[in-house]
Amino acid sequence: MKTREIAEFLDAELVGDGDIEIVSVGALDSAKEGQIAFVERSDKGVVTAASCLIVPVDFSDTVTHIKVADPKLAFARLARRLVGEQQPFGRSQTAVIHEEAHVQADFVGDFVSVAANAQIGEGCVIHDGVRIGRNVVIGKLSIIYPNSVVYDNVHIGENCVIHAGCVVGADGFGYVKDEAGNYEQFPQIGTLVIEDNVEIGANSCIDRGSLGETRIGEGTKIDNLVQIAHNVSIGKRVVIAAQTGISGSTVIEDDCVIGGQVGMGDHATVKSGAIIGSQAGVLPGKIVRAGVWWGTPVQPLDEYKRQNAMVKGLGRLREEVRDLKAALLDRPRGDPAEDEE
Amino acid sequence: MKTREIAEFLDAELVGDGDIEIVSVGALDSAKEGQIAFVERSDKGVVTAASCLIVPVDFSDTVTHIKVADPKLAFARLARRLVGEQQPFGRSQTAVIHEEAHVQADFVGDFVSVAANAQIGEGCVIHDGVRIGRNVVIGKLSIIYPNSVVYDNVHIGENCVIHAGCVVGADGFGYVKDEAGNYEQFPQIGTLVIEDNVEIGANSCIDRGSLGETRIGEGTKIDNLVQIAHNVSIGKRVVIAAQTGISGSTVIEDDCVIGGQVGMGDHATVKSGAIIGSQAGVLPGKIVRAGVWWGTPVQPLDEYKRQNAMVKGLGRLREEVRDLKAALLDRPRGDPAEDEE
Amino acid sequence: MKTREIAEFLDAELVGDGDIEIVSVGALDSAKEGQIAFVERSDKGVVTAASCLIVPVDFSDTVTHIKVADPKLAFARLARRLVGEQQPFGRSQTAVIHEEAHVQADFVGDFVSVAANAQIGEGCVIHDGVRIGRNVVIGKLSIIYPNSVVYDNVHIGENCVIHAGCVVGADGFGYVKDEAGNYEQFPQIGTLVIEDNVEIGANSCIDRGSLGETRIGEGTKIDNLVQIAHNVSIGKRVVIAAQTGISGSTVIEDDCVIGGQVGMGDHATVKSGAIIGSQAGVLPGKIVRAGVWWGTPVQPLDEYKRQNAMVKGLGRLREEVRDLKAALLDRPRGDPAEDEE
Repeated sequence: MKTREIAEFLDAELVGDGDIEIVSVGALDSAKEGQIAFVERSDKGVVTAASCLIVPVDFSDTVTHIKVADPKLAFARLARRLVGEQQPFGRSQTAVIHEEAHVQADFVGDFVSVAANAQIGEGCVIHDGVRIGRNVVIGKLSIIYPNSVVYDNVHIGENCVIHAGCVVGADGFGYVKDEAGNYEQFPQIGTLVIEDNVEIGANSCIDRGSLGETRIGEGTKIDNLVQIAHNVSIGKRVVIAAQTGISGSTVIEDDCVIGGQVGMGDHATVKSGAIIGSQAGVLPGKIVRAGVWWGTPVQPLDEYKRQNAMVKGLGRLREEVRDLKAALLDRPRGDPAEDEE
Repeated sequence: MKTREIAEFLDAELVGDGDIEIVSVGALDSAKEGQIAFVERSDKGVVTAASCLIVPVDFSDTVTHIKVADPKLAFARLARRLVGEQQPFGRSQTAVIHEEAHVQADFVGDFVSVAANAQIGEGCVIHDGVRIGRNVVIGKLSIIYPNSVVYDNVHIGENCVIHAGCVVGADGFGYVKDEAGNYEQFPQIGTLVIEDNVEIGANSCIDRGSLGETRIGEGTKIDNLVQIAHNVSIGKRVVIAAQTGISGSTVIEDDCVIGGQVGMGDHATVKSGAIIGSQAGVLPGKIVRAGVWWGTPVQPLDEYKRQNAMVKGLGRLREEVRDLKAALLDRPRGDPAEDEE
Repeated sequence: MKTREIAEFLDAELVGDGDIEIVSVGALDSAKEGQIAFVERSDKGVVTAASCLIVPVDFSDTVTHIKVADPKLAFARLARRLVGEQQPFGRSQTAVIHEEAHVQADFVGDFVSVAANAQIGEGCVIHDGVRIGRNVVIGKLSIIYPNSVVYDNVHIGENCVIHAGCVVGADGFGYVKDEAGNYEQFPQIGTLVIEDNVEIGANSCIDRGSLGETRIGEGTKIDNLVQIAHNVSIGKRVVIAAQTGISGSTVIEDDCVIGGQVGMGDHATVKSGAIIGSQAGVLPGKIVRAGVWWGTPVQPLDEYKRQNAMVKGLGRLREEVRDLKAALLDRPRGDPAEDEE
């Protein structure tokens, strides 16, 4: 892609040579010839071997550059465009596709299996060893990385990315005790709907609903090794970092940000716009309002910090109490106590 | 299945039409015609489109219903019966089964591999891409979901369910430092025994013993992304929620309930009947008695709550100390101090 | 292997019969005839059915034994030698190896797929269902267990072990918000380098760098279900227990020991020799010096213990304050207060 074409793609002003061939993106400090990098702010000088830079509008330098309102965003878009051109294409002869499945994907890798009545949209990339269950629907342009497993009846939207080793649509974890104290599985036969533009990290698990549905809203991004239980409802544009676990029937509304290793009890509600720090714990049934939350059980960040500071100050508080006691015992006549610290 | 047959299956009284055809189970509020739902308690009115209800014995309504002692349990059993009839059957030609393996399973999916001397019992369902190692024994009627891996020499009982992406029988995590400070693996060549009626959630890992065995007791249920280390012994009817990790040689006795994201150190013992709350931490070697436990390090729930309340009250305590100090300094002659709060 | 050969292999003194045939290793208390066990210290009597023992130099007993400086280490080395002889060999006809890949491995299992330009060294064992991406390089004698996924361009050193279900080289978790509040992926196109002698537990995930690299140093050992984010740099001989998560760009220097379920924020630095206890939390950007650390946020173990003790003593402190208050109010004339506790 020539620098001129990149400027056109970004709908932005090019300053410098429009005929430089760009093959890939790179970081400012390690980019080589033929790469394009980005500068986030114009406040410091730039030393780079990149052939072109994506820069803020107030940038000036002798290196060829393209001026945009948000360089990091423009860089991300360009990178997606450059990488997208390297997608695999074709259908492996080793794939087993049920005759009653309807597969339009651009690519189906080795040892993929697609069960009856599955529908896979145009432009999809289904990597090696992926399992697609019965009646699964996958929208256009979605990518499923190797060895992921999609259980029966799951719906996946358009333009989704599911990384390797994910398990979507497995049974939820629900049991009833029988007369003898043994656990009998409560039915886990509901659905899982993953809306458009969702990305799911490697080895994450999202369970189907028990009788109802589990739903992941449009544009939500989920990191690796995340656990989402049955009947959970996650809104749009939610971000969930690695190893977080969300228990059954919990609701996370739109535009929340959830840190890593967070644990949420069942039937909790996280209101739109809430931000929950890493390793936090949300009790079952808790309602978490908008704002920044931290700790177990979660508290507003300010309270968490204040409380943490008070715990850290416990040694001093204990000293003070000891001094007071001494003062009260030793100077019973009321002499002004000296602060001994 | 007709309503009359369902009543017979549940050994229960049918009130209403015995000829209604039931095709599946549903939730009370979303069930449709041809579905059966359940009512847990008779204390509120019922509005449903279900064709039949499983209800407590004191229930009365015009809709066709079946009276049982424990509606939720009866519903669960019926659901298992209805779903069980949809199990796949046959043996994929793409599966590679070692000539010295003995496979009686009802179903072996695509790209399954079964190594030498493995034995898989009658009625088993081995889904696509599952790996069965050498000398593995799997009892009757067990189900292994896609892409799970069973290492060599693992024993799995009857009627077990192992969800997708599980790894059972991998090496434990044990090393010895050599003279140069490098880690040499301590042998991880023991066994793993999974008893009957155990269920294991997606992407969970259970390591083999180092020299001895790891054991999961009968009827135990394990959620997704759980880690169970080498030489752990888990009793019967234990429930372990998602993302919990149990370190080496720890013992969990029968009928314990372990929340999600719990961490247990090595060589701990959890006595029969203990309940451990989510995100709790059990120190190595700790003995956890029956009762409800919470926090890190775990404490009895009452203590945990009391302590949490005291930490929350620290601000007030600090105020009180300040007031006392002021009172002692300002009123040395002994005037009764006023409580300023 | 005869006892005489074992003594030669360990370069150690044999006391007793050199012609006993040893087939495997066992634990001291459960070993059978034909097995060799080890005794860590000579301070207690030994009762064993093992045919030979590896013992400290001051050991004496009638059972055939081999005297070494570090019995546990010698035992581990011997076990590795005995197990190593049972490695599989050959290349499955069901494997799909790209014609432009260069595979010298000793074993390639069923349904393995190897993409273009991948290089796999001599003596490697690539188990069933493993996916090797384009341009992947794997050094000599490495073992990759079933259904693991190696994304494009990842470098794996010599003598590495990657357990089943691992995902190495997936996209990191990084996004840029666009004008409409949607998340656009920041490019995740860097590399992942796993140096020699690294072991990675089942179902763990290590992401590639975004633009730069993620690196796992020589001799580092990683347990199951661990998450390592993009651009993380882990030094040599680091041990990381199960379910720990390390956020982007964090640096862990050589010879650190990280417990299970630890969470580390991004851009933190753990200095060489630090030991971090299980479930600890390291804040973003934090520098953790050598020493033992515990809790969230991490503190030196001594401080953590002191603080924990103080929190546990809060009830008593509150009593003391109450008594002081009472003393100040009730005995304003200065009578020495009695300690009522």
